[in-house]
Amino acid sequence: MITSSSNGQIKEILQLNARGRLRKEKGLFTAEGVKLFREAPPELRKKVFVSDSFENEHKELLAGISYEVVEDRVFGRMCDTRTPQGILTVLRMPSYEREELLGAAYNGGKNGDAAGEEHSGRARTPLVLVLEDLQDPGNVGTILRTAEGAGVTGVILSGRCADIFQPKAIRSTMGSIFRVPFRTEENLPEAVEWLKSCGVRTCAAHLRGTVSYEKADYTEGTAFFIGNEGNGLSDTLTEACDCLVRIPMEGRVESLNAAVAAAVLMYTAHMQRHL
Amino acid sequence: MITSSSNGQIKEILQLNARGRLRKEKGLFTAEGVKLFREAPPELRKKVFVSDSFENEHKELLAGISYEVVEDRVFGRMCDTRTPQGILTVLRMPSYEREELLGAAYNGGKNGDAAGEEHSGRARTPLVLVLEDLQDPGNVGTILRTAEGAGVTGVILSGRCADIFQPKAIRSTMGSIFRVPFRTEENLPEAVEWLKSCGVRTCAAHLRGTVSYEKADYTEGTAFFIGNEGNGLSDTLTEACDCLVRIPMEGRVESLNAAVAAAVLMYTAHMQRHL
Repeated sequence: MITSSSNGQIKEILQLNARGRLRKEKGLFTAEGVKLFREAPPELRKKVFVSDSFENEHKELLAGISYEVVEDRVFGRMCDTRTPQGILTVLRMPSYEREELLGAAYNGGKNGDAAGEEHSGRARTPLVLVLEDLQDPGNVGTILRTAEGAGVTGVILSGRCADIFQPKAIRSTMGSIFRVPFRTEENLPEAVEWLKSCGVRTCAAHLRGTVSYEKADYTEGTAFFIGNEGNGLSDTLTEACDCLVRIPMEGRVESLNAAVAAAVLMYTAHMQRHL
Repeated sequence: MITSSSNGQIKEILQLNARGRLRKEKGLFTAEGVKLFREAPPELRKKVFVSDSFENEHKELLAGISYEVVEDRVFGRMCDTRTPQGILTVLRMPSYEREELLGAAYNGGKNGDAAGEEHSGRARTPLVLVLEDLQDPGNVGTILRTAEGAGVTGVILSGRCADIFQPKAIRSTMGSIFRVPFRTEENLPEAVEWLKSCGVRTCAAHLRGTVSYEKADYTEGTAFFIGNEGNGLSDTLTEACDCLVRIPMEGRVESLNAAVAAAVLMYTAHMQRHL
């Protein structure tokens, strides 16, 4: 049992929680709580830490799993939340190819096996979300969660987006981090060209949009672009997009929260595709 | 100029930021930043604090306003944010009657003046949002912001909802706190009866809902009920509602973020009403 906060492993967890660069360097991140432990693909799991009282109360959950026990008090310090549940998993970052964002091989088919009896994935119409420089990790996480719910096939994050592997973002995904294909793209304008070359229509939510969002057709391959909370979408991306749609706002509201705007668009596409 | 954190006024601000009970007792709350200062109705403004560097850079904004100057370093401690803008307003809580939630006298007409040339308000079809025991102040604030955007006429909060006057909630409203009528109701089942007696149809977003949300009709007076993040809507309220609607979810998503679910419903109502 680890009984000291100065233990090397505890120090590494604290650094993984706090430092995005270290997470990237090591290709690792942490996920706290029972739900994320359960939903994480076992092949991504690198190490499991549990508090001593958690171990006593969850023998069944932990059966057959190798884990490290940490004294309750020290465990509390390892976690980013005020009332940790008592289990923290260190995970390898999942990584996806561009093509996987388009829904062709969702949940399987990665090896190109044509026989594919085991493939749970079947070709879906691409529904992509592109996030430019979002600042709030909670927003990014919530968007990933909503994206899974609305049947989004993949999410693209700009290089300057809040880190999706930050503990708060991971918690906000509620496990969708393990199921929605996503990629960071350093060159978004080039990614737009790639989307277009795949026959995906690029639609930006924009205050200058002339078409009200619900009037556009999202039944074919579509990508929605969501801009930064403060500044909106950059001019470069705005000009690169095929169409600008506007979400109407009553009263004196100048903009919607990014996760809200994304949700309204994603669920409109979902509705159109399932009518 | 206030130069010490132990100044009585500074201490009171810190307590107003931290303690909901004190806010309620005094009927006061704080709002940080230029946007909230500008958008707050002058009649609610009780006191304005600015940092000394803010004062130097914003002479025009502050012209004709009485305010207190606080040394930058001390000002930083008064604020709930990491990078405060330099202006903090102490405000009286707005309060609304039940009837004002229904849109009849929105933005005016409170005095019952029938001549009413000055009335910006006109009768609108009620669109009410009822929030039961939401825990996250950021969610409550974001919901108020979205509510204004979607043309909601009023918001009801349960007594155990996160405090809308908490600094993070206030910031998340982006000023909608000053424009969307809202009320706390200690007895929600009784409030449901009142809504029904006003001819408002009560619709709960519920996992057991049998009607997909976009198939229901929200063009007449409607109230949406949103439950607690962890537990959903209570059985009592669920049973009291006229209809249960379901937001479909793909993948393995078990629920949506409360602000996201509320946004999807509110904008569906907005769309139906503006087609």
